[in-house]
Amino acid sequence: MKNIVLMLVLLMGCSHSTKKSSSHDPLPSWRETQVKKSIIEYVSKITEEGSSFVPMKDRIATFDNDGTLWSEMPLTQGIFSELEAKKLGIPIPAKKKMTEKELLTLFTKANTGMTDEAYEKEVKEFFTKVNHPQLNVPFLKTRYRPQLELIRYLTKNGFKVYICSGGTTDFMRVISEEFYGVPEEQVIGSTFQKQYKSEDNTIQSLPKADFMNDKEGKVYAIDRVIGKRPIFTSGNVRSGGDVYMLRYSQGSKYPNFQLLINHDDEVREFSYKEEDGKSLKWANKYGWHVVSMKKDWEVIFTN
Amino acid sequence: MKNIVLMLVLLMGCSHSTKKSSSHDPLPSWRETQVKKSIIEYVSKITEEGSSFVPMKDRIATFDNDGTLWSEMPLTQGIFSELEAKKLGIPIPAKKKMTEKELLTLFTKANTGMTDEAYEKEVKEFFTKVNHPQLNVPFLKTRYRPQLELIRYLTKNGFKVYICSGGTTDFMRVISEEFYGVPEEQVIGSTFQKQYKSEDNTIQSLPKADFMNDKEGKVYAIDRVIGKRPIFTSGNVRSGGDVYMLRYSQGSKYPNFQLLINHDDEVREFSYKEEDGKSLKWANKYGWHVVSMKKDWEVIFTN
Repeated sequence: MKNIVLMLVLLMGCSHSTKKSSSHDPLPSWRETQVKKSIIEYVSKITEEGSSFVPMKDRIATFDNDGTLWSEMPLTQGIFSELEAKKLGIPIPAKKKMTEKELLTLFTKANTGMTDEAYEKEVKEFFTKVNHPQLNVPFLKTRYRPQLELIRYLTKNGFKVYICSGGTTDFMRVISEEFYGVPEEQVIGSTFQKQYKSEDNTIQSLPKADFMNDKEGKVYAIDRVIGKRPIFTSGNVRSGGDVYMLRYSQGSKYPNFQLLINHDDEVREFSYKEEDGKSLKWANKYGWHVVSMKKDWEVIFTN
Repeated sequence: MKNIVLMLVLLMGCSHSTKKSSSHDPLPSWRETQVKKSIIEYVSKITEEGSSFVPMKDRIATFDNDGTLWSEMPLTQGIFSELEAKKLGIPIPAKKKMTEKELLTLFTKANTGMTDEAYEKEVKEFFTKVNHPQLNVPFLKTRYRPQLELIRYLTKNGFKVYICSGGTTDFMRVISEEFYGVPEEQVIGSTFQKQYKSEDNTIQSLPKADFMNDKEGKVYAIDRVIGKRPIFTSGNVRSGGDVYMLRYSQGSKYPNFQLLINHDDEVREFSYKEEDGKSLKWANKYGWHVVSMKKDWEVIFTN
């Protein structure tokens, strides 16, 4: 009997931890188009033993947030900043006439001058109370379901998924775990200067720009925080803010994947283009995978 | 028979993954003094269900490197910089007469102007070829064995352990995994400015200081990279560079632990003091645990 038990134990093993999830569709909100096929082919390839295998520790993925993981028309942190400014009694210039400098000043004032704890409380309250002005739903429902499935799929396959976006780190960290399942320490964003006061053991943001996580800045921030090139990156068409991050990942010594979201669904979301078309040009030049929200996504938003 | 098999399977289960390590000593290089007892009591307390329990995601530990994880007399990156400067033909002023500014210039020149890949190669070569000048052993053997055991002990208990030190991030990342089992992305250090060139897809350091990870800077960097207060911190007596990091952790809402290494073993390592004595004063004032290397450590170095 001893042998039978041993055999059974060996056969059953720790089946729950090694079970492959190949039997069910990991990306049900993606239509059966080329993009979905390419993603699954890529992930299978780099997780199976062979010449394309990537060790777990180097499976780094970075996702932009605005327009890549949730709607960006208008920017969520922009809405927060306007309401926060009103609440704090900060004068707001007439919207249509606001210069870029005035906008930045407003943004800075609304998002600084608080301890980390006080700021977190403000942001949490915003997400509980305010709805998206155009889509008229809580912000939780402006997330893209296909992208959430993708994050889960990558995570299950040993990826460490980071958010790397232009919003401020402190703003995104409040919701990264709940909205995307991404731990706070895997959030890379723009930052303000801060001051640590040992007398009362607080750290407080100052109304001075520190680092803008956009364009080449994203490459610098990834290098500083993670220290290695991601092998999977995702951004979107609008400002060209993600092209360097995507390009950077192509310098990895491992097989890599670039996913660019194109907002072309005026019925279910919004349709907009990039002024100089750089993102799509680079996608074509460097062989990135372009998502047509209209054609490649069966469902757009989460419930 | 079916029932017996089932019972046996359940009994054996996945025993290797759930086995508690309470039966063996997790810190064999620590003497049976109060510090060791306090560490083990603390870790037990916060990992067991109860009022002191800390959720896994908030078990963050930060360790200084020079003088906390390995010897700092002289600084390893200082030795590297001098040799690198010689190699690159950078003029080196006479050691005893070097001003702080000259030292910083030399340091900057020796550690910049390279792509990430080229710099990594230089550092790797250094660690393969050069011995510690005083201790006359490879640098791998200048690590403190008690601290390595502590890192492993914390990691096994669900902690995410970061290195947070004054050395540059890029320098420490080359050895963090091999020397300490700490992944590259859990290294926080000083940085130089960098330039990303999309034409050849390289990122290269510039001879310009960017961020100095020392004193209050450590708090700022932890806030930026991790986004939450560590609950376990360790630094050492010499310059007062770690006091704010240790103090910062005491603002956590969870039970927390501060470990300050005092270099008082002139026989087995070195004995040195801090000019204004701030670290030991704060340790006393704020109730930190002070390690006497002479009394609390049975073994100093790794093999």
